This record gives sequence, structure tokens and C-alpha cells, in this order.
Amino acid sequence: MRSWALLLEYDGTPYVGWQRQATGLSIQAVLEDACARLNRGERVAATAAGRTDAGVHAVGQVVQIALPDRYRPDQMRDALNFHLKPHPIVVLQAASADAGWSPRFDAVQRAYSYQILNRRARPALALHRAWHAERLLDEATMANAASLLVGRHDFTSFRASACQAKSPIRTLDRLDVTRAGDTLTITAVARSFLHHQVRNIVGTLKLVGEGRWPAEQARTALEARDRRMAGPTAPADGLTFISVHYVPDPFGPGRGAS
Amino acid sequence: MRSWALLLEYDGTPYVGWQRQATGLSIQAVLEDACARLNRGERVAATAAGRTDAGVHAVGQVVQIALPDRYRPDQMRDALNFHLKPHPIVVLQAASADAGWSPRFDAVQRAYSYQILNRRARPALALHRAWHAERLLDEATMANAASLLVGRHDFTSFRASACQAKSPIRTLDRLDVTRAGDTLTITAVARSFLHHQVRNIVGTLKLVGEGRWPAEQARTALEARDRRMAGPTAPADGLTFISVHYVPDPFGPGRGAS
Repeated sequence: MRSWALLLEYDGTPYVGWQRQATGLSIQAVLEDACARLNRGERVAATAAGRTDAGVHAVGQVVQIALPDRYRPDQMRDALNFHLKPHPIVVLQAASADAGWSPRFDAVQRAYSYQILNRRARPALALHRAWHAERLLDEATMANAASLLVGRHDFTSFRASACQAKSPIRTLDRLDVTRAGDTLTITAVARSFLHHQVRNIVGTLKLVGEGRWPAEQARTALEARDRRMAGPTAPADGLTFISVHYVPDPFGPGRGAS
Repeated sequence: MRSWALLLEYDGTPYVGWQRQATGLSIQAVLEDACARLNRGERVAATAAGRTDAGVHAVGQVVQIALPDRYRPDQMRDALNFHLKPHPIVVLQAASADAGWSPRFDAVQRAYSYQILNRRARPALALHRAWHAERLLDEATMANAASLLVGRHDFTSFRASACQAKSPIRTLDRLDVTRAGDTLTITAVARSFLHHQVRNIVGTLKLVGEGRWPAEQARTALEARDRRMAGPTAPADGLTFISVHYVPDPFGPGRGAS
């Protein structure tokens, strides 16, 4: 047995989220079960870069788990994908990891994206992939509001009451708002995020985009350090965990990744 | 009652295709049922610009159907979307149409796009939205092969045996192959297409992309006028009906569309 790094893509719709819970099937449980099939049925715990909530998707979740030595990285990826069937969870890359490497604590940057479908008709092809906003959103004003949140701040106003982080201080490196047709994409990049931080920011930016809040109210909400002063929590299904950055890259050249 | 034009988006996954069939639920049946709710339960026939096959999606299907006079276009769109729930079928725009206007015969150009997910791991988020191709595809060679099919040709080699068109001659205005990461998109534009024409072309281009066929073999296949000389039919779920062009635009300014 040794430590492995796995790069995962999943559709979060049918799951209670990354973390094991008594209330339903988690991505962690499905992955650990698949891994156990390579380890004589013995289950070990996986840890993830981000504990995505129920309904949240990932195209670049990074996970650490102990797995047998005897597979090449490409064999490990293929064997896990075989055992993950028919779940909408796949291993994009597998690589042997350094002992002590942590996908959570060694991450230097994480990126999330949030999709809003901005039109009158509800989503058909983007069902479970986007938040439906019927009122026309002004993405330029939303981008202005977003720029007020970039940087190192106390994000108490955008933090879930259940958040277990010791400090509400985070540094938001980027918060972009772009539109392509009727789809708005909000991209958030930081070393780490508070619980529900991206979804609470998106809920606030939507109020600005609808013209119900001036852009400056995003700053007022931030400075209040009071959750009640920011907007509502945007639904989970518009959110996708895009990528995690590490130095060195656990899937980089020489790591045997595939 | 008068003639209406409807612009539709749908997820083709759960349906037997556009056309009513005894074997299962069709998009046509679901739409006609929703329309009947606005017409005292009386059902009338809808006609579509393209009779998409089972599993094929649309973001710009255009349909004609007789509906009551008494709604404004925005009310009509919203009322139909209400009655279409919970199906993944929505009306993006509704407009009153000229008597005699046909979405099928008046179309001057149609566009389809086909997605191939080109990586080792099967699709998770793109499940039912892309053809999975594990071998690395050379999109530049595929684009070369595609260019050999553009223009006015006898497309017998790319036509389903069940195709009911009188002539196998079609003019392919565009056939583009592009890559973004591990996703290849093939875009096909023509006044009209033969049955399975896009999917048979994609099946052929994939052989070229894998290096199993030289690009020139696309021309050989075309010139053979023999279905057996072209590649296999690509699966339905990678295909999306993108748009139809009309002159004048039934949803254009002054048509009351919304």
C-alpha cells in the first residue's frame, strides 16, 4: 500500500456531497468502495481537496487515498473507473503521491465556477448544471461588485453558519463574471474558501445583476461581517469545482500520472 | 386558432425522437399534449424543421403548430412551458407565423453540432451529451478530411438506408472540426441533411482522427456512393440540432416573438 493522488470528475446531482453521511450516498463512499475492490475488500479513508456539498459538481477534484503498490498509474485509473461504473464519477488521472502529501492542506489555489442560465425558459439541457435567473442580469455591474470582493478580507458575511474554519479571513485572488449568450459564468479563485462562500457571493451578485442592489452594496455587505447583510445562498447545482493547484503538481511530469 | 412558430430546446435522452411513435414517448407527443391544454384538450399536429432521432438534443429546433389567437407571444411561451413541466423540453420563443409558413420547407439553412469526448475516462458530466473516443484523435487531419466533404455532392455513402429523401444530392456549406481540451466539436451547416448524414460523417471522421484512415479516404468514400464505403454511424447522444435559418426570421423584429 502507498499513497495515491486521484483527479476526479463527477456529476454531484445524485449524491449527498463529497463527505460520507448517514442520510444517503456520498461521492467519498462510492470512491472508497471502488478502491476497496482493489484492496481485498478492505476500505480505507479518502481525503479530498474540497468537501463539495450535495449537488455540487467537479471536473478537477483532487483526492488522496492509500492503494496497492502493484499498479501502474494508467492501470490504477482504468481499474478504478471499471469499479466506479455506472456512477457518474470518473478518475481522470492517478499518480503515486509522496508520503504525507495532503490534497487539502497542500493546495495553494482552488478554482470554482458557477453557471447562471439567464432567460425566461427554465433549463432543459442545463438541468442540474445552472441556476435559473429569469430577470435580465447586468453582468457589467455584477463584475463591478465582484471586483470589490477581491483581495484579503474578513468574509464572515459570506460564510455559512455551519462553517468550521478557524478564521473568516480569506484572500480572493479572482472573481470574474462573464456572459456567453444567456449563460453567465462566475469564476472564483483563492487558496481556500469558507463553507458556502462562493454560493453566498453568487447570491449577492445576482441581487446586483437584477438591479435590486447597487454594486457598492457588495462592499457594505462585506464590511458588515454579518451573514444577514449579504445575499441568499445560490443553489448547489450551478457550482463546479474546477481545479486545485499544487507545487509540485502531483500529476506533473515524472509523477507517473496518467 | 392561427399558425405559431416555436423555438425549442430539449434533452433528447428520454425520448424516442421528435416524431410520434408507438414504441415510446416522443418530443412531438409531449409538445402536442402541452398545446392541447391551451385548446380545450383538442390535439393538432406539430411539424418540425428537423425530425431529430432518439437521443439527439436541440437548442434551436423550430416547430409550427396551430394555437389559439388569444395569447401574446410571451404568454404563449410561458403557458406552454408551464404545461411542458417536468419534461426537459422548453419553448425559448413563440411568435405568430404567416399562414402557409413551413418550418421544414422554408428553412434556408440548418446547423448541427457533434461532441466527442476524447480521453481515457468515460463521460461523467458529459454523460448523454458526447461520444466517448478513447484513442487520441488528430483534429487537424479530421479537419482536412472534413474539407473534402464540403460542397455540393451525392452523399449516398453517408445516407441511412431508411432515408426518405428523393435525392441524395446535398450541399454541405460548412463542416468544421475544433478542439477545446478533451472535447472535439464538429459543426455541420447545410440547407438540409439526409437521414443520419451528420452521424455517418462523424463516424468517418473519427476513423481518420484515429489514423485508421488517411484523410483522402473520406473523398474515396464519398465518390463510391455506397454506404458500406463510409464509416459507422456515430451514436445519437453526441448530436445537437443548433439552429435553423429562415428569410424572414419568424422570430425577428416585428414578429411579436418573445
